[in-house]
Amino acid sequence: MNKLIRIDMRDLTAVVEDTPADLIGLGGRALTSHIIFTEVPPTCHPLGKANKLIFAPGLLAGTGAPNAGRLSIGAKSPLTEGTKEANVGGTAGQKLGRLDIKAIIIEGKPDSDGFYIIKVDPSGAAIIPAPELSGLGNYETTANLQNTYGEKVSILCIGPAGEMGLAAASIASTDPEGRPSRHAARGGLGAVMGSRKVKAIVIDDAGTKVRKANNKAVFQEVCREFTREIQALKSTGLFRQFGTVGGLSYLSKIGALPTRNFTTGSFEGNAQIGGKGVAELNAGRGGSFGHVCMPGCVVRCSNIMHDRDGKFLTAGFEYESSAMLGANLGIDDLDTVMGMEKMCDDLGLDTMEIGVALGVAHDAGIYDFGDGERITDMIREIGQGTVLGRVLGQGAKITARVFGISRVPVVKGQGVPAHDPRKEIGTGIGYATNPQGADHTGVIIFHAENTAEMVDISRQKQITTCAYDSMGLCQMAEANLEVMAKLVSSFYDWSWSPEDVADMGKSVLRKEVAFNRSAGLGPATDRLPDFFKEEPLSPHEGKFDIPPSQIEKVMDFK
Amino acid sequence: MNKLIRIDMRDLTAVVEDTPADLIGLGGRALTSHIIFTEVPPTCHPLGKANKLIFAPGLLAGTGAPNAGRLSIGAKSPLTEGTKEANVGGTAGQKLGRLDIKAIIIEGKPDSDGFYIIKVDPSGAAIIPAPELSGLGNYETTANLQNTYGEKVSILCIGPAGEMGLAAASIASTDPEGRPSRHAARGGLGAVMGSRKVKAIVIDDAGTKVRKANNKAVFQEVCREFTREIQALKSTGLFRQFGTVGGLSYLSKIGALPTRNFTTGSFEGNAQIGGKGVAELNAGRGGSFGHVCMPGCVVRCSNIMHDRDGKFLTAGFEYESSAMLGANLGIDDLDTVMGMEKMCDDLGLDTMEIGVALGVAHDAGIYDFGDGERITDMIREIGQGTVLGRVLGQGAKITARVFGISRVPVVKGQGVPAHDPRKEIGTGIGYATNPQGADHTGVIIFHAENTAEMVDISRQKQITTCAYDSMGLCQMAEANLEVMAKLVSSFYDWSWSPEDVADMGKSVLRKEVAFNRSAGLGPATDRLPDFFKEEPLSPHEGKFDIPPSQIEKVMDFK
Repeated sequence: MNKLIRIDMRDLTAVVEDTPADLIGLGGRALTSHIIFTEVPPTCHPLGKANKLIFAPGLLAGTGAPNAGRLSIGAKSPLTEGTKEANVGGTAGQKLGRLDIKAIIIEGKPDSDGFYIIKVDPSGAAIIPAPELSGLGNYETTANLQNTYGEKVSILCIGPAGEMGLAAASIASTDPEGRPSRHAARGGLGAVMGSRKVKAIVIDDAGTKVRKANNKAVFQEVCREFTREIQALKSTGLFRQFGTVGGLSYLSKIGALPTRNFTTGSFEGNAQIGGKGVAELNAGRGGSFGHVCMPGCVVRCSNIMHDRDGKFLTAGFEYESSAMLGANLGIDDLDTVMGMEKMCDDLGLDTMEIGVALGVAHDAGIYDFGDGERITDMIREIGQGTVLGRVLGQGAKITARVFGISRVPVVKGQGVPAHDPRKEIGTGIGYATNPQGADHTGVIIFHAENTAEMVDISRQKQITTCAYDSMGLCQMAEANLEVMAKLVSSFYDWSWSPEDVADMGKSVLRKEVAFNRSAGLGPATDRLPDFFKEEPLSPHEGKFDIPPSQIEKVMDFK
Repeated sequence: MNKLIRIDMRDLTAVVEDTPADLIGLGGRALTSHIIFTEVPPTCHPLGKANKLIFAPGLLAGTGAPNAGRLSIGAKSPLTEGTKEANVGGTAGQKLGRLDIKAIIIEGKPDSDGFYIIKVDPSGAAIIPAPELSGLGNYETTANLQNTYGEKVSILCIGPAGEMGLAAASIASTDPEGRPSRHAARGGLGAVMGSRKVKAIVIDDAGTKVRKANNKAVFQEVCREFTREIQALKSTGLFRQFGTVGGLSYLSKIGALPTRNFTTGSFEGNAQIGGKGVAELNAGRGGSFGHVCMPGCVVRCSNIMHDRDGKFLTAGFEYESSAMLGANLGIDDLDTVMGMEKMCDDLGLDTMEIGVALGVAHDAGIYDFGDGERITDMIREIGQGTVLGRVLGQGAKITARVFGISRVPVVKGQGVPAHDPRKEIGTGIGYATNPQGADHTGVIIFHAENTAEMVDISRQKQITTCAYDSMGLCQMAEANLEVMAKLVSSFYDWSWSPEDVADMGKSVLRKEVAFNRSAGLGPATDRLPDFFKEEPLSPHEGKFDIPPSQIEKVMDFK
């Protein structure tokens, strides 16, 4: 991939540059975090004009490698006030790869209030006024754009949440069926896009082909072997059967499922909103499992959920959404939880951050756990932009501030996702140290014997995840360093060793940590909130008791 | 002063201890910041149970030294999330000195929801349930307590803002007339007090006497000389004539008066809401000037403002309040501004933070500058605890977050007070580097020739201010290091040199900076927001253009 597209929203210009030599080895998160580190003033306001929003497909995008189509999106985060990368499935990553586009970098803000779209195709990029899209949800936005640009384009877009500058605003990405069901959810990147007055990016790769490997025979053989490995994963079988939500009852059983604002780790309604629930419901309504969210996926963890009338409701009803909007709010009615998830999809909201924020809001005494109707109304308020809606849409930390609540499950301002760190201690070490804040990717550790082991596993997992995110690989594919080295080496004719892949991962973490420090986030922001250390988590009475001296070892590597 | 009173709100106990040897040389801010540094876990939630709220009179409290009755209050701040000291006039500091109380330290939180008062007198301290005070404003609270405990007691109390945990909540202190007109305003200490369920502290010093100096003759002579020096200050004359608001027209004239959300530095209505306005209004209504806010004050900068009916409205109508609630919101009607100030007094709100927050809220399009009626309603909403009210009551940074606004005049989360740093560059250096966040005390520099000089003056000013705040001295008295050394040396029979006083000031700053770092506030939080560097300030077109390399020199001292 050779082209860097720089969009300047001040004067509405798009410039296509050749990729400079020092960026050629970078893709996905390695590239977004590098550009943030080198080009974004660390103390700038995330919604101010100096921030940049970067879209970068992974090194393997558009190559035909399995599970390698994820798109990294990065900026200084309005949620954490530090560096941010969120990656997303859908079709955009692969198309950008085929278009030979290394990254799209959106800079500056226009003076006027109207929204624009950016159209990207083999001829370059154009910035087109689109005032008619203002205020539309993601589904209407994508339908409108597909009407104009055809059903085969990929669309990256924001809903009303991003337009309003809410720090829980996501950037949606259309799936192979053209639905905006996938989200670069975490960290408020949708708000950064909204602040630049970009409503959508339309990507048309008509006429392009799969990228050619330098060493085609080896590359294809590595891909075949990797495909077999993915297919053989035990988790792949589970995911194809139920989607990721299939794991919910297990998490409840081991007592790690955030329930009722993290007051317990098991939810009595786990069957209803977990794998059993979605399977029974789909059997009667015509929904289905085993879909892909991006071309080239072997795992097929995406589900299609139908409503009571047997019509499409939502795709990619994930574990994290069901956990944080369901168990964490005490709701065991699957239709209600799916309805909330669909609203978040359409408004362009991170279901995790909203689930955590709503959980915190319970302590303000404004609703009762399990009151799906009231809670649904509160999500509706986010879309309406009422003051309460805006507060919730700014995430858990702000919701707690506004209501004077001191028990706040956030790290670096980002809501803790659906693995309680008191049961999953190793995961908690990752929440504390991940430069992205409490994140659900790259830090989950179910099994580890002792603290030192957890520290090592967490570090290694975060390094490897940086590599996945830079290749464009889905974490569900569980690539190891060796296969990643073989994939890029055969495709690019590089000679990367597994150590080279790890070194790239380390380099990403180093830049991310350095940016955070320069942004004012000191080492002491690498901590979990006190209540995880103090309140035992029923039913297993666990606490997060890892001392700072151990936590500090995670990012201490050469 | 020998007694430390530790109040544990978990079990409602009060323990009186002798002051440990290592704390004897510390008073006021030196003591509050030391206890925060040594006893408060830096990453704790400010409203959580691990935070501590410390009240410490200065070393010269109760001694008869002029202008030495200020009381320091400290805690980890819910506004800045760093260390916080706010000091306040009124009668409490002197009474605590006479009671031989070095500090009151409030720890823990009760399990129940009801509020308490703490009664302090020569016999010790008692914690008394006071559910009847819940929800009351400061005026009703103090009237109620004076009814019970007599008119001569000092009262430190919070209004509804503190009860709600708002980060702009102040702690009020009664003046010599028993009015809760003085406020430890900045940093949300009222919210920390509210979170501990303490509505008020009642201080009864009946039967106590002025503290005796070790070297009485020298101490009295130093006091007399210092009194003459204070009386000779040009500013003292101005303050006695109009109060501090007398300076407003000058600030407007030089173009440093924050006006309409910091969009210009001059306000056409400056005469109406400045010295001329208050003088004319008082002449017709029976208000007056030249009052003291604390016993022993020589400056006498407090004014008494009456309403249209000639009745008492507010005391201590200060420059900062008139600037931030008047000019910064485009309101030139003095009665409206005074009415807003009185509401803040009664609700227990920092007028500066609220003025900055309301200014920012303008950019959300929810009111027009100058619309006093609408703006007054918004302050009313803070007291009512509506969601909008709570947002505003959390201060400027949260208001900006909720409404997606990126132009935010805050440093370390604290609203910039009434000296625009684009005109007062040296003041801006202080805003950036002060461990307290953007503060109106200890950083104001009107005249300096060049950057290096400003850096030196700012450092020296902050060190000296730490010394004032540790002695209990009002900054208006402009004590120099020498007089401070003489005062404590003759009173305590210590042999402090001016360098020793400066060393104490330096030690305070060091501990405050260290606590901030341990709380996660990295060096990069020592910055002004970008718009002060980018938007020229009319009418003089100044910008704040000091590079970080210079800013970093301020706290770089031995």
